[in-house]
Amino acid sequence: MNTQPVFEYLQDLQNRIVEAVQMVDGKHFLHDSWQRPEGGGGTSCMLEEGNVFERAGIGFSHVMGSKLPPSASAAHPEAAGRAWEAMGVSLVFHPRNPYVPTVHMNVRFFVAKAPNGSQDADIWWFGGGMDLTPYYGFEEDAVHFHRTCRDALDAYGKELYPQFKKECDEYFYLKHRKEPRGIGGIFFDDFNQLGFEQSFAMLKSVGDAFINAYLPIVQRRKDTPYGERERDFQAYRRGRYVEFNLVYDRGTLFGLQSNGRTESILLSMPPIVKWRYDWQPAEGSAEAKLYSDFLTARDWLGQR
Amino acid sequence: MNTQPVFEYLQDLQNRIVEAVQMVDGKHFLHDSWQRPEGGGGTSCMLEEGNVFERAGIGFSHVMGSKLPPSASAAHPEAAGRAWEAMGVSLVFHPRNPYVPTVHMNVRFFVAKAPNGSQDADIWWFGGGMDLTPYYGFEEDAVHFHRTCRDALDAYGKELYPQFKKECDEYFYLKHRKEPRGIGGIFFDDFNQLGFEQSFAMLKSVGDAFINAYLPIVQRRKDTPYGERERDFQAYRRGRYVEFNLVYDRGTLFGLQSNGRTESILLSMPPIVKWRYDWQPAEGSAEAKLYSDFLTARDWLGQR
Repeated sequence: MNTQPVFEYLQDLQNRIVEAVQMVDGKHFLHDSWQRPEGGGGTSCMLEEGNVFERAGIGFSHVMGSKLPPSASAAHPEAAGRAWEAMGVSLVFHPRNPYVPTVHMNVRFFVAKAPNGSQDADIWWFGGGMDLTPYYGFEEDAVHFHRTCRDALDAYGKELYPQFKKECDEYFYLKHRKEPRGIGGIFFDDFNQLGFEQSFAMLKSVGDAFINAYLPIVQRRKDTPYGERERDFQAYRRGRYVEFNLVYDRGTLFGLQSNGRTESILLSMPPIVKWRYDWQPAEGSAEAKLYSDFLTARDWLGQR
Repeated sequence: MNTQPVFEYLQDLQNRIVEAVQMVDGKHFLHDSWQRPEGGGGTSCMLEEGNVFERAGIGFSHVMGSKLPPSASAAHPEAAGRAWEAMGVSLVFHPRNPYVPTVHMNVRFFVAKAPNGSQDADIWWFGGGMDLTPYYGFEEDAVHFHRTCRDALDAYGKELYPQFKKECDEYFYLKHRKEPRGIGGIFFDDFNQLGFEQSFAMLKSVGDAFINAYLPIVQRRKDTPYGERERDFQAYRRGRYVEFNLVYDRGTLFGLQSNGRTESILLSMPPIVKWRYDWQPAEGSAEAKLYSDFLTARDWLGQR
């Protein structure tokens, strides 16, 4: 299996997103390349204290090994012991203005190679998705984000968006708070059912859709006036992001436990976070509306 | 087994610590009592935006059940299925002044009761400890804290302090950062080797020592002048506290996974936290000194 086209696509995607975000922010990303002692490496791009983004991280990584540990894939026990290769782009952008939502996107590819000279096939799959975490919700933004996700998927099967949306709602859920992390989006893993070419095309469609899914929302909200109250609520809600990523997120936990590069894994952490004891929004407030109208796993696109 | 004396000791300890801290801070704790649907409850005491403490939480809980899940105790598989009772006091105090260290203390008791009419004995143990997390280190404070811990233990066996200090250094360690959480202290679990009366006496000695171990350090440092630089470093270092508690701390993870009371479990979270990409202290700075001289699992009391 030739993994080069996926490698090239992912590197290019990172560059395109970096450039698009720089255009909006005005400040440039820092590029930090790193090597992994066991094989491979990556580039972490980071923008801190920008004009629009308070902390925006996007990482590309391409790592490999000669022997896949049995624990690495519960879904594919037959891949254990094989040479493997994993690559992906992952990002989390934390805006400064509390009216701009935080966003996460990830596209990744994994392959466990058939032993040389064997008749077996390579085992491979794609994974990824994107999801939005507003502090102050806007239906218009939620619909736009979900519609862009749906439009990216529809050409590959009308069943994909509803299925990936459901997986997203289930995955980005804080059990200990009984709360979704945000308004969802799409999430998929272990995807290979369309064959390599079409599955890869679907991944590209998702990756390519990111800029259109998110940046129009940033443009629309980034100059909304705000004060200390909104900043405080944003910092408080970012605590949920930290709780999700450190307690539940598989990629984060796997990275930290498997001796990954800590600063690249924790690109996702917000710049400033606050915790308050048993804080509740005032009834009828804009903050209460986030909980009642947005953190509810809604069907944003209605009947199809 | 009569658990009432432990219950009374722990409740009283919480009250004594609340009163001592209020004397230092000038602001009063909020008292919040809660019930657990499956049995038991507790009281969380919280001081936020105080004069000395930015966020100080101390919780007492007493919970019970009729059937201990097998997963609850790897060390005592024979306790599975028994009626059980657990109680404890746990605290984390986050001071405002970056020259005052953050502190954690916990004392707890667990009993799995022998079935009625059986010849078996109750299975029980004590656990707990305290540890200190400075932002700017002072040898004098570290020695005082460790000496107070040692003095609390020596009457129960000279081997206890070295053993509990080592367990503390091993437990409060961030593997993904290759960094201790702070300057340690003492940590013990599954402790019953002195028999009930003496083991309980040791627990009381540790609990009683807390105020003397910590408050003199607070008094000594709380009026040290500081600026934005020190506050920034404090907020950055508090990120490590969050990472430890959400990624590694057994009590926190068990609580969150077992449907515990989230706000009481997350009393330990700092009030304001910052993450920065790949931040490093300037060579020779006061911040660098924390890493080189304090986060090193040192023997603070020298040869004995």
